[in-house]
Amino acid sequence: MTQTSTPRSWVASANGHSDFPLQNLPLGVFSINGSAPRSGVAIGDHILDLEAALDVGLFDGAARAAVEATRGGQLNAFFELGREARVALRERLLELLAEGSSLHGKLEAQGARLLPLAANCEMHLPAKISDYTDFYVGIEHAQNVGKLFRPDNPLLPNYKYVPIGYHGRASTIRPSGTDVRRPKGQTLPAGQTEPTFGPCARLDYELELGIWIGQGNDMGDSIAIGDAADHIAGFCLLNDWSARDIQAWEYQPLGPFLSKSFITSISPWVVTAEALEPFRRAQPARPEGDPLPLPYLTDKRDQAAGAFDIELEVLLTTEAMREQNLPAHRLTLSNTKHMYWTVAQMVAHHSVNGCQLQAGDLFGSGTLSGPESGQFGSLLEITEGGKKPIELASGEVRKFLEDGDEIILRARCSRDGFASIGFGECRGKVVPAR
Amino acid sequence: MTQTSTPRSWVASANGHSDFPLQNLPLGVFSINGSAPRSGVAIGDHILDLEAALDVGLFDGAARAAVEATRGGQLNAFFELGREARVALRERLLELLAEGSSLHGKLEAQGARLLPLAANCEMHLPAKISDYTDFYVGIEHAQNVGKLFRPDNPLLPNYKYVPIGYHGRASTIRPSGTDVRRPKGQTLPAGQTEPTFGPCARLDYELELGIWIGQGNDMGDSIAIGDAADHIAGFCLLNDWSARDIQAWEYQPLGPFLSKSFITSISPWVVTAEALEPFRRAQPARPEGDPLPLPYLTDKRDQAAGAFDIELEVLLTTEAMREQNLPAHRLTLSNTKHMYWTVAQMVAHHSVNGCQLQAGDLFGSGTLSGPESGQFGSLLEITEGGKKPIELASGEVRKFLEDGDEIILRARCSRDGFASIGFGECRGKVVPAR
Repeated sequence: MTQTSTPRSWVASANGHSDFPLQNLPLGVFSINGSAPRSGVAIGDHILDLEAALDVGLFDGAARAAVEATRGGQLNAFFELGREARVALRERLLELLAEGSSLHGKLEAQGARLLPLAANCEMHLPAKISDYTDFYVGIEHAQNVGKLFRPDNPLLPNYKYVPIGYHGRASTIRPSGTDVRRPKGQTLPAGQTEPTFGPCARLDYELELGIWIGQGNDMGDSIAIGDAADHIAGFCLLNDWSARDIQAWEYQPLGPFLSKSFITSISPWVVTAEALEPFRRAQPARPEGDPLPLPYLTDKRDQAAGAFDIELEVLLTTEAMREQNLPAHRLTLSNTKHMYWTVAQMVAHHSVNGCQLQAGDLFGSGTLSGPESGQFGSLLEITEGGKKPIELASGEVRKFLEDGDEIILRARCSRDGFASIGFGECRGKVVPAR
Repeated sequence: MTQTSTPRSWVASANGHSDFPLQNLPLGVFSINGSAPRSGVAIGDHILDLEAALDVGLFDGAARAAVEATRGGQLNAFFELGREARVALRERLLELLAEGSSLHGKLEAQGARLLPLAANCEMHLPAKISDYTDFYVGIEHAQNVGKLFRPDNPLLPNYKYVPIGYHGRASTIRPSGTDVRRPKGQTLPAGQTEPTFGPCARLDYELELGIWIGQGNDMGDSIAIGDAADHIAGFCLLNDWSARDIQAWEYQPLGPFLSKSFITSISPWVVTAEALEPFRRAQPARPEGDPLPLPYLTDKRDQAAGAFDIELEVLLTTEAMREQNLPAHRLTLSNTKHMYWTVAQMVAHHSVNGCQLQAGDLFGSGTLSGPESGQFGSLLEITEGGKKPIELASGEVRKFLEDGDEIILRARCSRDGFASIGFGECRGKVVPAR
């Protein structure tokens, strides 16, 4: 699947600085003007309607079976088919959409099959999410947050042995563009011993990579780390919106609950492992001298492949900034290379106790901060818990998010000799508490 | 719905000391000899096949709509219909199954509609569980466990304000009778600083009440505590199997994960709120002098109604005990009155931040221990973390569960002037690690 050249597409918009060049081909689920959700592939600023292309006979064999499995507005059955079907579909799409393809005319003659993304396409969740697990593998974030509580010993003793994770709420995962209603809840005012109730006053974002699970495992079985890659369907961006004041009061002893469950936003396009393959080559976050992973988390090929080198960006606009047409304020510029554990390690760990994973399960990586200022993946880290407000070009300041603020996550993979690919956006605007 | 007398059923086995007298009428999903799962109602030691009864025209109006919604081997749509439909179905079933019912003959003539429970009926999960939340409202358990860590101050400061809960794993919830594969995982041996990997050595049970959610709420909305009862479909028993050694090493800072996610067992019959109504009258666990609940958790009618008075029992048999025909060893005799928060308070809290609940979501209460020896709902409490092994009639001792051990949860509601009802069993036998 390695890209050895950068062929172009006859879809002109795919050849510029698009998130979706020919080499990406992410899958998603969309609808037009309220019609039934259906599957599509992003190419440039258009969507190829997969079901329509199927109906006119553009797919055969394994590629056809793959598209059949995307019917019904959910990609779960497609995820369940695994890597072979995904690769067959990718190869056929490369043929169909490449510059000079003999199928260009056929597709163009059926112009309605290629729909402008921006117009009236609504993007949906790509799959029914049965279970959502949020990990904590961003070691710089774990250290930054740990420092706020334990300056001399920020990492807990288990961190370098256990890919820490916890169960999240699946019912409130929403696609990019869904408004973020400010949650209400209990908080403990500073210096008080009794809580009060009201709208969250310390609303935050968390920059994460989302991981879509492909083929699952039976309860009682485990996925060996060497097989883990076959169980990963693709990737997205994930904003783990967090109510820090609610979190601080509720989270002992069983972890975050209502401080996270009001909404989790994801980018709607599933970027495949095949598209990301050229961009897995970064020095991972596990430094020399750290303890070796236990055998069930050890796979030489996986660890030698390195971490994903995906540049991650977080932008903020406020109502005032949008009114004044000011450019978005960049809050974060980070990278997936700050993941201490690989995605394969996360899969192997999650299932080592016999826990059943299912196609369409979603993992969050945990917040992916870098070690330096400008690289922090949450306001908690940037403002040191509200102590150091940031200043915006509009003259406003922010400790945490205000109503009307919009957070935009973006991602970009670049490497000499390869087409640069992106993830599309993960957006969410804060609206007032009810 | 209050029971003012104890009418009998023409199903003879329902009139003795059955868990399922005419006054219970719990719903479940069953199959026979591998046929497609379908809905039924337990009566004595039989199941009334609801779909078959529908097909011969025994239901009309709201009751008919209710049974229609149970089609397809999942009760989610029935749960979503809410209280009115459930009550209509209950009233019709009371008519159909009461002694002297003119429908007795009609049902008997179609003998196959009443199936013996014990024979070849396999019970399934009654609904597709989208999200599972485990609470921690058993205050005696919280105190018993807290004492192991903080003898002078066992309860954390938030306990009497926040109905503590966390997200659990939905994919590994299984009906009674499913074997419990001993999980493997990382544990930290006493006195060591590096973990080892292997089968769990401290496998435990937790005695909980399960709560089925009926009608849900939209994301961003909250369920007011006064309306919470309308969102509860029914109840079951729940065993929150726990790997204590894995839990101790993994749970900081984000809570239990693999130590719980290998399996959660539930009793398969959904005991309705209507059936339990006469048994809600116990003094709740919240003593005089404790802080008042915040307004969003306050409903005078709810709190005046008291706690459920449901007697809960845990039994253990070992392989040796079964071979010697020894009676089961009672580990726990407890009661739901030890819940510090009512079920309505749990629903109101869970949704107060706008978190979407959906029909078929499951809550666990948390371990329901009493304050005295003999009432503890886990081996962690009974053996004080393994320090005080229990002795069995077989001559064996147990600190935690061994392979071959079977745990059986039972529940019973009794009150003068009312038929006593039960929940059916929640069983699970430990099988060796793979």
